[in-house]
Amino acid sequence: MARPPTPVNDRCSIARSLTVLGERWSLLVVRDVRMGHTRFSDIRARLGVAPDVLTDRLGKLVELGVLERRPYREAGGREREEYVLTRSGEELLPVLASLSAWGEEHLPTGFGPATRYTDAATGRPVHLAFVAEDGRTLGIDEVALVRGPGAIDAAPVSEATA
Amino acid sequence: MARPPTPVNDRCSIARSLTVLGERWSLLVVRDVRMGHTRFSDIRARLGVAPDVLTDRLGKLVELGVLERRPYREAGGREREEYVLTRSGEELLPVLASLSAWGEEHLPTGFGPATRYTDAATGRPVHLAFVAEDGRTLGIDEVALVRGPGAIDAAPVSEATA
Repeated sequence: MARPPTPVNDRCSIARSLTVLGERWSLLVVRDVRMGHTRFSDIRARLGVAPDVLTDRLGKLVELGVLERRPYREAGGREREEYVLTRSGEELLPVLASLSAWGEEHLPTGFGPATRYTDAATGRPVHLAFVAEDGRTLGIDEVALVRGPGAIDAAPVSEATA
Repeated sequence: MARPPTPVNDRCSIARSLTVLGERWSLLVVRDVRMGHTRFSDIRARLGVAPDVLTDRLGKLVELGVLERRPYREAGGREREEYVLTRSGEELLPVLASLSAWGEEHLPTGFGPATRYTDAATGRPVHLAFVAEDGRTLGIDEVALVRGPGAIDAAPVSEATA
């Protein structure tokens, strides 16, 4: 986590996102919680992760504002905590979906996807795509990456946005 | 890289994708190459990364089939190699875009995005969205995650797809 600043990296939102999300298990925990597995014991059993590692990842995701703890109590039991996604956590869905789609295409297991992304209303598959302001969907070859105002080597904003 | 198999993880495309892509610098290298920075010295200067680390990451990305090496020679110079994206590497664009958008929204630097995603034809901004089969774009709350055939705890395929 203690990463030295670098010329480009400290302004890069990909690098910042990955400081926590790139750690093993973190995004899988987010996916499991999104699928309704909100309890420590359930997540641990699903992922086969050591309890101390899971405790660490859950703590970091809470600290990052991706998860929050919510108390619950089963009949006759003591109060425990489960984990729910914050809005920030919900907004990780495209990250999960893009990694999943890429891995399924380029690192296939032969078993098919472990998770599918569907239209909640119809149950039909959905996919991620780039969408223009007028609603057209664009293929990846139709998208350009340009330096934004936060780029260290960017032109002045007035020029960059011209 | 040598990760023990786990109940869910070894069939999870997110986990598989992250074994290489989650390593520091890997996705930033992909982004830089996508932006046209294809030479070792250029990437190194932009990222401020140690040469041995960059060599390692480039090697892994070539091994993974995301990058390939291509020889070039400047006038009077000796032959060198630059890096270009394979189709698999090109298809990481939604991963880059989703991490970038999330980081920009939830871990902002105050400088604005370092990279912007635009319609190559018009220069106007584009964004990632979930798209249904009929072309409608869906909000993240309209998307459901369901267990697919590759899930360890999935129901038999005939039931899961019913």
